Amino acid sequence: MEAAFRVLEILENADGPMSGEYISNELSISRSAVWKHVKELQAIGYDISASQSEGYRLTKKSNRLLPYEVHKNLRTTVFGKKMRYFESTPSTIAVAKEMCGSEDPAKLHGMVIIAEEQTGGVGRMGRVWVSPTGGIWITIILKPRIPVDHVFMVTMAGAVAVARAIRKEFDLGALIKWPNDIYIGDKKVAGLLLELSAEADNIHYCILGIGVDANISPHELTSSVTGSVTSISAEVGHDVDRASLLARLLKEFESRYNLIESQEYDTVIREWKSLSCTIDQHVRISTLKNTFEGVAIDIDEFGALIIRKDDGRVERVIAGDCAHT
Amino acid sequence: MEAAFRVLEILENADGPMSGEYISNELSISRSAVWKHVKELQAIGYDISASQSEGYRLTKKSNRLLPYEVHKNLRTTVFGKKMRYFESTPSTIAVAKEMCGSEDPAKLHGMVIIAEEQTGGVGRMGRVWVSPTGGIWITIILKPRIPVDHVFMVTMAGAVAVARAIRKEFDLGALIKWPNDIYIGDKKVAGLLLELSAEADNIHYCILGIGVDANISPHELTSSVTGSVTSISAEVGHDVDRASLLARLLKEFESRYNLIESQEYDTVIREWKSLSCTIDQHVRISTLKNTFEGVAIDIDEFGALIIRKDDGRVERVIAGDCAHT
Repeated sequence: MEAAFRVLEILENADGPMSGEYISNELSISRSAVWKHVKELQAIGYDISASQSEGYRLTKKSNRLLPYEVHKNLRTTVFGKKMRYFESTPSTIAVAKEMCGSEDPAKLHGMVIIAEEQTGGVGRMGRVWVSPTGGIWITIILKPRIPVDHVFMVTMAGAVAVARAIRKEFDLGALIKWPNDIYIGDKKVAGLLLELSAEADNIHYCILGIGVDANISPHELTSSVTGSVTSISAEVGHDVDRASLLARLLKEFESRYNLIESQEYDTVIREWKSLSCTIDQHVRISTLKNTFEGVAIDIDEFGALIIRKDDGRVERVIAGDCAHT
Repeated sequence: MEAAFRVLEILENADGPMSGEYISNELSISRSAVWKHVKELQAIGYDISASQSEGYRLTKKSNRLLPYEVHKNLRTTVFGKKMRYFESTPSTIAVAKEMCGSEDPAKLHGMVIIAEEQTGGVGRMGRVWVSPTGGIWITIILKPRIPVDHVFMVTMAGAVAVARAIRKEFDLGALIKWPNDIYIGDKKVAGLLLELSAEADNIHYCILGIGVDANISPHELTSSVTGSVTSISAEVGHDVDRASLLARLLKEFESRYNLIESQEYDTVIREWKSLSCTIDQHVRISTLKNTFEGVAIDIDEFGALIIRKDDGRVERVIAGDCAHT
């Protein structure tokens, strides 16, 4: 495909149609190779008109979330420089785990796995994560050099990045709901899931799955999701450029991640809190062991929510379900 | 091998030699099958004399750490009921990880993997763990239903169990050195290593590797180990019954583990502290980020050591190297 994208680049930069002869000269390939590459590009969603007299013309770019399109907008140093793309895969998290099992995770740091659709997407606690075409379903492989007990700061950095990216790209008031969902108003639009392989003082790898309901009709999601959901396209009234959103998200994430690596936890915590719709809310928390209600008053550097319970006592919750009541 | 151990059981319970005919009748197998099983038992280290006139007699049990021998002493409910035994394997932790990757970890809970020797044993931070024949090199697979941030309580429970088992079996003053070593005097005799696969509120599995220098000459260990080492045989002056020690260790561990599952963290922390040679010591701590000195004053329910630094400030360390100074 590499050569096909060189053809694409010429068509993108052209003012009008480009002759097969020009492209073939430019890339030192045969005219039949040019034609083959045009067919490849058409197959992945680029509208390219071909006329005997005029040549080739790009009339509409692909609406797939192709690495080529993301890279055009990507302003990161490491994150997303390497990508793997799937039209369909059971779960990008599963792909990432497999990769970390067979390659040195340190060499995979910053790798982003993208799928147009996931056929077996998972959310927290093994719940189903509906992931139809139109969303952003990615997993980022990370090799953090931070203490294991601070690893959930990575999820916090990710949540800040997703909320910021949605805000900056679309001027939508995205907020973070603890522990790892992104909401617009009272409707969920995105979620994160962190998986970890570690020993006490050594994180082998952590992989952050991010799902954003970008160009999806909320009807496609509601059947199997509890609570209200929305999508970016539903909020802004038209399909959006997912590649540009993903590039922005990765840039926002990389800068917060770097803060964590420098142990500047406070900066990320402050930003998380300023974007949180959970802090100061009355909530009902369900953990593995019990359920209780109270007001969420703070979050600490381990990602734990601090609750002032209705009976006045203060409780710290590292993980659980949280309902705003 | 199952049938061979039935033959062994008969020989163990016999006052004198048993004829092949008796055994063959008892087990409803042919006399040549009896002979085959005797050969199998001899091959794994059981001394069995065979005479045409008298029959078979067990003269010495195997000194291998065979599941059959451990089970004779095992008083647990779950831990060690299922075992996998290797004469030699690179690393029992690696075996456990593989198993957890291909089977449901919940079904493997309590499984113990034993190796007579490890050819690629690893300690903390990927350091080499020398594991020659004569030691106890095991890994226990666990599926804890506890919050992820309390997972290092499992290591603490394991350390308490190892120290207690050594004390009870041999009346040796074993103590715990933070984070996860067992010492006799100023010499290391055992170590633990916990590996974790988790998401925020769900531990997929954790595997606890335990290595005990049981019947090993300390000379075999010192070449590649920093600091002084000893072994149980060196301390008591003779080889010890590893099967009995392992059975005791698993029993001690299971009871502490159950406390953790019941969130009775305090009981385990108290016991850990009473067995610790680190608390109240002046220590030098090296973490991923820095090195500092101070007095270890406490440990918390996340397994973090609390240090009053020489400059008076109090620091919490979740992981690192600790030298008593």
